[in-house]
This record gives sequence, structure tokens and C-alpha cells, in this order.
Amino acid sequence: MEVRPTTLIDHINSPADLRALSPEQLPQVCSELRQYILEVLSVTPGHLGSSLGAVDFTVALHYVFDTPHDRIVWDVGHQAYSHKLLTGRRDAFQRLRQWGGISGFPSPKESEYDTFPAGHASNSISAALGMAVASAAKDEKRQVIAVIGDGSMTGGMAFEGLNNASSFPNNLLIILNDNNMSIDRNVGGLNRYMVDILTSKTYNTIRYDVYRGLRKINLISETNRKNLLRFNNSVKALLARESNLFEGFSIRYFGPVDGNDVCRMVEVLQDIKEMKGPKILHLRTVKGKGYMPAEKQATIWHAPGKFDISSGERQTAAPKPEPPKFQDVFGHTLVELAERDERIVGVTPAMPTGCSMNFLMKKYPHRAYDVGIAEGHAVTFSAGLAKEGLIPFCNIYSSFLQRGYDQVIHDVALSRVHMVLCLDRAGLVGEDGATHHGVYDMAFLRCVPDLIVASPLNEHELRNMMLTGYKGINAPMVIRYPRGKGALTDWRNTPRIIEIGKGRCLTEGESVAFLSIGPIGNIVQTVVSRLAEKGVSAAHYDMVFLKPLDEELLHCIGKKYDTIITVEDGCRKGGFGSAVVEFMADNDYRPRIRRVGVPDRFVEQGSVPEQYTDCGMDADSLFRLTEELLLHP
Amino acid sequence: MEVRPTTLIDHINSPADLRALSPEQLPQVCSELRQYILEVLSVTPGHLGSSLGAVDFTVALHYVFDTPHDRIVWDVGHQAYSHKLLTGRRDAFQRLRQWGGISGFPSPKESEYDTFPAGHASNSISAALGMAVASAAKDEKRQVIAVIGDGSMTGGMAFEGLNNASSFPNNLLIILNDNNMSIDRNVGGLNRYMVDILTSKTYNTIRYDVYRGLRKINLISETNRKNLLRFNNSVKALLARESNLFEGFSIRYFGPVDGNDVCRMVEVLQDIKEMKGPKILHLRTVKGKGYMPAEKQATIWHAPGKFDISSGERQTAAPKPEPPKFQDVFGHTLVELAERDERIVGVTPAMPTGCSMNFLMKKYPHRAYDVGIAEGHAVTFSAGLAKEGLIPFCNIYSSFLQRGYDQVIHDVALSRVHMVLCLDRAGLVGEDGATHHGVYDMAFLRCVPDLIVASPLNEHELRNMMLTGYKGINAPMVIRYPRGKGALTDWRNTPRIIEIGKGRCLTEGESVAFLSIGPIGNIVQTVVSRLAEKGVSAAHYDMVFLKPLDEELLHCIGKKYDTIITVEDGCRKGGFGSAVVEFMADNDYRPRIRRVGVPDRFVEQGSVPEQYTDCGMDADSLFRLTEELLLHP
Repeated sequence: MEVRPTTLIDHINSPADLRALSPEQLPQVCSELRQYILEVLSVTPGHLGSSLGAVDFTVALHYVFDTPHDRIVWDVGHQAYSHKLLTGRRDAFQRLRQWGGISGFPSPKESEYDTFPAGHASNSISAALGMAVASAAKDEKRQVIAVIGDGSMTGGMAFEGLNNASSFPNNLLIILNDNNMSIDRNVGGLNRYMVDILTSKTYNTIRYDVYRGLRKINLISETNRKNLLRFNNSVKALLARESNLFEGFSIRYFGPVDGNDVCRMVEVLQDIKEMKGPKILHLRTVKGKGYMPAEKQATIWHAPGKFDISSGERQTAAPKPEPPKFQDVFGHTLVELAERDERIVGVTPAMPTGCSMNFLMKKYPHRAYDVGIAEGHAVTFSAGLAKEGLIPFCNIYSSFLQRGYDQVIHDVALSRVHMVLCLDRAGLVGEDGATHHGVYDMAFLRCVPDLIVASPLNEHELRNMMLTGYKGINAPMVIRYPRGKGALTDWRNTPRIIEIGKGRCLTEGESVAFLSIGPIGNIVQTVVSRLAEKGVSAAHYDMVFLKPLDEELLHCIGKKYDTIITVEDGCRKGGFGSAVVEFMADNDYRPRIRRVGVPDRFVEQGSVPEQYTDCGMDADSLFRLTEELLLHP
Repeated sequence: MEVRPTTLIDHINSPADLRALSPEQLPQVCSELRQYILEVLSVTPGHLGSSLGAVDFTVALHYVFDTPHDRIVWDVGHQAYSHKLLTGRRDAFQRLRQWGGISGFPSPKESEYDTFPAGHASNSISAALGMAVASAAKDEKRQVIAVIGDGSMTGGMAFEGLNNASSFPNNLLIILNDNNMSIDRNVGGLNRYMVDILTSKTYNTIRYDVYRGLRKINLISETNRKNLLRFNNSVKALLARESNLFEGFSIRYFGPVDGNDVCRMVEVLQDIKEMKGPKILHLRTVKGKGYMPAEKQATIWHAPGKFDISSGERQTAAPKPEPPKFQDVFGHTLVELAERDERIVGVTPAMPTGCSMNFLMKKYPHRAYDVGIAEGHAVTFSAGLAKEGLIPFCNIYSSFLQRGYDQVIHDVALSRVHMVLCLDRAGLVGEDGATHHGVYDMAFLRCVPDLIVASPLNEHELRNMMLTGYKGINAPMVIRYPRGKGALTDWRNTPRIIEIGKGRCLTEGESVAFLSIGPIGNIVQTVVSRLAEKGVSAAHYDMVFLKPLDEELLHCIGKKYDTIITVEDGCRKGGFGSAVVEFMADNDYRPRIRRVGVPDRFVEQGSVPEQYTDCGMDADSLFRLTEELLLHP
């Protein structure tokens, strides 16, 4: 990549500055933005590939449209880094995804240019449609643009939006940023359909060219309703022999256009911006565009971590042995179980790499189902597989399961199918921030009848739980575990079936009892040790199961202790600690109870340790809390 | 309608008996089934219209396919009554939707012919696809059929299923039962698209006829892969000038066919049943088919209540004045507020009649948005409207909001838009049973930061809360209220803005304190009166807000009472009572607390009073509980 002096973007403090440039200068702006993104991300990890691919059309959007009066609604903000740089956050960008810094996603709290939260996929059309309909209803002259990737298009919510887009008066423009990728390669009928469009050269250009030609010779104009109708009819007549899926929804379709050609993009956007009614512009872009290593290996460079720009070498992991990521323990264990029993299969909504189900895909390609970004479907599809005797391990990030909540109740719990739902990224997730924390799952799953919900203290327990979900029960089981690494280096134990609803005492003690669930129990262990050094005898119980609770153990604890501290990597309201206080109240135990967990507010981006400290969930906070309690019995 | 002697269906105790008949007898079977459904439903209310419309193809399905070895997966089981009658539940049908009787929906607990829960819309393709993929993977020769209405097709989950249907080997047959209705008239681009198909006569038949013709002359056979390919290519060539939305998903499309012609249906199904790969058969049916009043007024006869068969007169409501339904209070109040402020709009996912938003639609058609069965979209679309300065009242049944949970967190709470989410059918819902209870909302919403969640004691309070949501705050507010009638006849108060997070004492008392939220407080009031008659001084606090809790009031209560009973029409785990025990524990109050609410199991169909009794939430149970507590202090 050619490095140019960053003279232009240094003077762009808002899109108005961008719009003061001539069109001929835009390629340089794009080039400078790419260089800046590369420089920052090489030392401050973030989402590289999609952001590089989106630079050119982002520049074109801000150049052609009057932002922030006109609205851009992003869909999964990975791609929006250049948008951040163009909207007054060039310096702040150096603290991307850091504690006290700026979010990796568009965030309305951060900038008026960030119109809507954009962490979870497929919401942009619905949000932008609402905004466009409101603007039309209020007779404001405002353009609303939804920018959605082809991966996000597979989410059902995107279709609900498409289906609704032509129902009410609006001028919504949907930019379909098609790089044939989400994080991994896309799947599904729609994806093949879009590839078909891309490879059909006649189809590609005719529609737009016809429109443009007619417009140029003033045969049509957007202010002239009669001519507009005539145009529509002409195009329909011309194209009747080939219809289009999007037009099935009564949305005008244009494209595909090269979304990495900023000058062409400016032309196209200027041509269609005044057009009335909902419309979709299909862009073809290249993930990682402008940086050869990222163009070549898109999945790896989706979020590459630190890297050397010139050599393209990514910073390698620390020398082994060290604890593996929980997701890898899941991935390897799933393969082991699949080797034992051919009924075992895997289901992932577009996260094979993120949850390490790619291990199973490699070993048994026909036994791992990537269903695309479609969490609700993933859950119910798994239930269907289970209904006919397979044993699916369906892996979904905790915060994305919020999209499949009804399906867990209605299709899994109510039908009591035998399947295992593994929730990766449960708890605070660090740099991805507020939209991605998996902190509500214990609260929203605890109330669902007939579910078993567990969380492992460490890698061995995760393997035990996976074996138990497969072989120890004939019912649905949920296993939640966090992002990142576990606690053990020798993680590959021989898994054993554990007893459902059985907790255990990790440390005996007299003065105070810690009750924890999940890997945060390891922090509790260090606190218990520190307390012991101070002469305080603290007990630690790993409850293992959120549901069913180990009531026998809780009776013992309720009888024995005057002071109980519950600790969880999840929301305080309604979660694990709440289950403990419910039990104690139901059974008329009256210990003093403190519940440690995520407080009732959204927690911003940063490292997980910073977030733990912020929430009073770190070892120091736990230690201080215990000291205070014991000082004031 | 001509009444025939019910001689045939008396001898059909399973689909095998049906299959022993000749095809010529099937119209009579259909006629008898209709008559039977009419007779039962005229005295035992249920869902009439869709069930009448589905009789013929249901008979054809069981006739052609080898159920239960072959699987039928229904989507919203309203339409499945004749399926119940054909599968051994003819007598049980007389206790449809009653306590101890059978469910109004297919229920796997009830029959092996009911393969999957079918209360919530749009899940059938996902479930059936899972079953079909599992059967293919296990090399079982099994047909799986998903029956989905055109209304359910607008749900995003249906699209997630369609998008995925061609990704893995399977023989899924999707029956699209298109009556151009869900409960109300359908909306959206897809719906218009399907109407277009229906009115395009050339398109209608060519595909199927070509296939059938070629098959008849043995040019193609499903066992011959090469010929099959040739067939596919022929059809493609023939039809290249007209493509199809469903084929955009690589699903073979046939239709539309008259789904009320049982003989034709049998022919068509026999023709396509051996065809490999996913396929969709588009049926045109008439809601209420065979019963003229229901054919004429489909929305009214969707679930007509009791009626006289011969006259078509529906049993009129009891004489006024009596308390109105909560939904009507919502509907009228929304119109009143809309009259005051043009920023106020309504959003409903396909429930304008069910939630009484049709009042607003009538008065201000352009200010009420029916977005189709699409709860996630409804929530985020509303957030988009709010973002641009409108004030949407989005009304969703509580149990259906489970489909929009992520959207509440990510698109509403995180962006703190000013909108009001009204949850109708919150709490136990009676005859619709396990799939429809709105009992989890307090548990799953209580953990969401920045939400305000309230529930009215009566109609006046509902109106106050709606005014407060509109004018008293600038933040998202949730109001939950139950199915059915309120408590007041003079419900049209002058609404006033209430203070956020403020509860109130309804009855002073000393021995015990009841803390309730929502209309179940009226039951508590009768209990308090009965206790007073027995000389027991019981206090009653209506907490009004689940979130934020009235902590000042709770401090007073915690200080004063040794015994507290919380009462809610929602799940005990994690709900309102849980919030109270959390507060008491956090603040070191140690009263004895009993939490009354829905226990941790699915509650079957029946009347709401029966369900209350079953759950210990009725006045007698509360009275007994209090007596026991006071006897054993």
C-alpha cells in the first residue's frame, strides 16, 4: 500500500470539512483514512477487515449526504471506523475500545453522527425505517440511510424490516455492503442468490443505466410524479424477464456497484439520492481493501489483534503452556464427543471461528451446521434436530441469545428436547462493550421452567458439563462460560458426568461464606486465601448450577452462616444472587447477604479487569467488602 | 351449509383409518369435520376461521403422508383442529382449551402426531428443517412437512428458516397456507408479492404442469439424478423470464393451488411427495371456508366466542355497564392522547384488533403502524420513530415480546428513546395455555438498565400510566396489563401524571403486609377485607412500579413488618417478589417473606381463575397462606 502524507484528513474535523473538498481529492482521503486505521489498529486491536472495506463508500456517503441532518444508521459498527474518523473522533480513535475511550461501535452517547446503537446485527433497517417514516410524517426533508452487511441480511429482523419498508411513506436508502463475508464466509440461500446477481453481468448494470439515462435526458424527474411512474413502468417493462428478490418486497433495487470506487459511489449516490420511496443499493466491496494481507485472509484479519503493518505479521500468542481459551476447550471437547457418538452435531449462527466450532467443521464437515446470523432459527433448528434423535450442541454468544429467547422458552423448554446450548462470551466481555456483555442470561433463563443452567469454574468443569449434557441427562441444558482464557494449563482431563443440581464446597470456613457460580469463583479463591492470611476463615461454595439450585447444600449454608456473599459474572438483578436470596427467604433463613455482580447500568468498553473493578467484582473489592462486613457484624 | 350424517369421521380414530377410505370419500370427511368443528366451537369457544379453512388440505396431508412416521409441524396451531380430530382426539375435542382438557394448539405432550409446540408464529420452518435434516442425516425415509400461514411468513424467523432451507440435504416440504389473513388483514411487501402471484394466471400453473407432464411421460423420475437435473434445467429455462422470491432461496416453488379442493390437494401432494430437496407448495385457502358467516367476516370469526350455527349470531356481551377490557381502555386512551398530541403514534405487530389499536387506526389511519407478525422489528421500528421525535405506543402481547427481547435491551434501553411499550396479555392468559402466558416479562425486563416498568391496579391507573409515559418522562417505559376485564365500570377518569417509582398504601395494617403489583392487587384487597372480618389487621401496598422500586416505601415496610407477602401475576423466579427479597437482603431487613406468583412450571390451558387456583394465587389460597403464617409466627 502506498503511504501518502496525511495532509487531508488532518483538516477534516467534521463531514462539512470533507464536503469542502473536490471529488478528485476523495481517493486521497480514503487512502489516508486506511493508513490511519492501519496505524492505530496495529497497536490498538480492533475490527480491521470490514472497516477497510467500507472506507470508500463511507466517504462518499458523508460527501453526498448532509450529515448529521441526514442520518446514517450502521448495522454492526465494525465497518464504521472511517465514519468515526470523519466525524470528529480522529484523536479519540487512538483510545478505541479502551476504558474511558471510545466505543468500537457507533454509539449515540458518543456522537450525534451515531444515530443508533449498532452492536447486534440486523437492526439497521428497522431503526432507519422508523426514522425515515417519522421524518416523512413530520414532513422534514431528511434522508435516512441504513448500511447493512450481507451477513446481517440473513438475520430475520432484517427481513422483517424489508417486508415492512414499502408499507408506509418513506425515502429510506438501504446500502447493502456485500463483501460475501460476515466474520466467516456467509451461508444460505440468500447468499447464493446475491452471488448469482453479482455474476450476472447483464443484470448488473441495466437497471441503473436505464434510470440514469432517462434522468439525464430529463425524461424523468423526481419532482414529476407522472414521469416517475412512467419511469417505473419502463423499467418494469424492460426488466420483466428478470425479477429480483428485493423487488419482491416492493423496494427498488440498484446495483451491484463497486463500493470501493469512491468517485463512482459519489456519482451513484448523487443520482439516486432524490428518488422517492424505499430503495436498496447493492455494493460489492472487498473486506480488508487496500491492505494486501487482510484482502487475502479475511477471516483472520476480521479482528487481527496487534500486527506489524509492513510485514503483515500478527503478534503471536505468548509462549505455551498457558490456559487455553474457553472457546477452544469447547471446540476440542465437541470434537472428542462427536468422535464417540455420531448423534452429536454442532450448530452455530455464523460464529464458527468465534466459538471454535470450526474444529468440528474441519473434522466432520457434515455434522456442523452454520446457519448464518440467525439466532432464533439456530435455537429452534437445533430443537428440531434433537426432536429426531440427534444431540445438538448449539453455541451462541450470551448477548446474542437475547435474539433467541422466545425460542428457548417455546421450542426448547416446552418441548423438553435433549440438546445443549452453550453460551460463549457470558459475563462482561471487555473491549466490545455495552452491547456485547453477556450479563443478562442468568436472569432471563432462571425463570424458564425445565431448563438446566450451569456454569463451569474452569476448563475441566466445562468438559464435565459438556459430557453431562450429552450423556447424563435427557433434557435441555445450558452451559455458560466467558470470553477469554480459563485457569488451567492441563485442561484436557478425562471428563466425567456430574450430578445435576449439585454444588460443592471448595474451601471450608466459619466466618463468612462465598457462594459463586462460574469462573469468577477463581477470583473468590484468591480472596479466600488472602482472608486466610489475615486470619479470617472464609468458606467458598461453587454452586455449579444456577438451576436447579442445590437446595440441600443451601440449607446447610443457611443454617451455618450469618454472612453470605454471592458472586457472579452477571447482572445483580434477578441473577444467581437473587436465586440465593429467594431461597433463604423461602426457607426463613435470615443471614446477612451481599450480592456481588454487574450493577443495574450499562458498562462501557475496556478490559475485563477494568470492568470488574468498575463493578466491584475484582479481588480487591471483594476483599474490602468482606472486611467491612466482618468489622460490622 | 349442508349437514350430512357424521358417519365417516365416527370411524376415524387415527390417520390410518382415513387412509383406508377411497379418495372419493374425502370431501364427505371434510364436510363432517367442518360440521363437528362448528358444533363444538359454537358452545366451546375457539379459533374457528383458520381451522375451517385448513380442513381440506389437512385431510389430504394425512391421507397422502404416513403420519406419525412422517411429521407435520404446524405453525400457530389455530388451524390444526381437524388435525386433532383425525388423530384420536374427537371426543377430547369437546374439552378444547379447558382445564384438564386438550390444548388449542398442537402439543407434543398431548399426542405423538403433534410433533412440535405451535403457539408462537413463524417457528415451523426452523423446527421442521431441523427434523428433516436429522432424518436425512440418519438416512431415515421420512417426510417432514411444515404448515405455515401467510401471516406467520412475515416473522423474521420464517425467513431465517427459508434462507437456511437449502443449505443442508433435506426433503422439507413447506405448505404455505395463504388466506391473505393472519388475525387481521396482512400487511407488507411480501403479502403484496403473494397477491401478485395469485393474480398472475400464467405463472400460477405452468411450473407444476410442466413438472407433472414430464413426470407422467417418464421423462423425469426422482430416482434418476441425471434426469432430475435435466428437469430442473428445463424448468429454469422455461421460467427464466419470471423468477420467484422463494426460488431466490433455492427452494422449489409450486402453486398456487386451491387448498380447499381436497381431491386436487391429494393429487398434487402425491405428485410432489417424492421430490428431493426443499420445496414450497403455495395453497390458496379461504378463512372460514364452508361456513358463510365466517367466510364473509374473517376477522370477527377468527375466534368468535359462542354462537348459533344456523343463524350465525354470536353470543352478545353481557349488558352494560360492566368493566371494559383492559385492551379497550388502552385503545380508547391512545386515541385520546393522539387527539392531544400529533407526535403520538401506535405500532402493533399484527394485533390491531387483539390490542384494540384498531380504534386509533380508524380515527387516524396514518398514525397507526401495523408491521405484521414481527415483534423484533416492531420494537426497533418504534425506537426509530422515537429517535426522530414521534412518541410511539408499541403494543405487544407479553409472551410475544420474548421475540423482541434483544431489541428492548439493545435498541430501546441502550438508546434511551422516549417510547411506551404496552404489554397486553401479561400474566396468566387462560384458554390459550402454556405457550401464551405472559408470565416472564417482569423477570426478563427487571434486569434491563434504564427501563421503567409499571403495572396498573385498574383502568384508571392504566390511563394514568399511559399519560405518564407520554408526558411525564423522556425515557422508555413499559406498562404491563392482563388479558380480559378490569375492575371499574366508570373507567374514563381524567388521567393524571403519576410519579415515577412511587408506590402507595391501599390499606393500613399491622400484622402482615401484602405487596402487590398490577391488577392482582384487587384479589389482595378482597383478602385484606376478609382478614379484617376475622380481626386480622393486614396492610396492602400497591407498589405500582417494578422498576424503579419505591425504595423509600420499602424501607418503611422493612422496618415495620415481620411478615410480608408479595403477590404478582408473573413467575416467582426473578420477578416482583424477587425484587422485594433482594431489597430486604441488601438493606438487612429480615422479615419473613412469602412470594406468591406463578411457580416454576408450565401452566396448562383453562380459565384464568382455574389457573390462579392451580398456582395458589386466588383469594382462598392467599387467605389460607396468611392464616398459616400468622398461626406460626
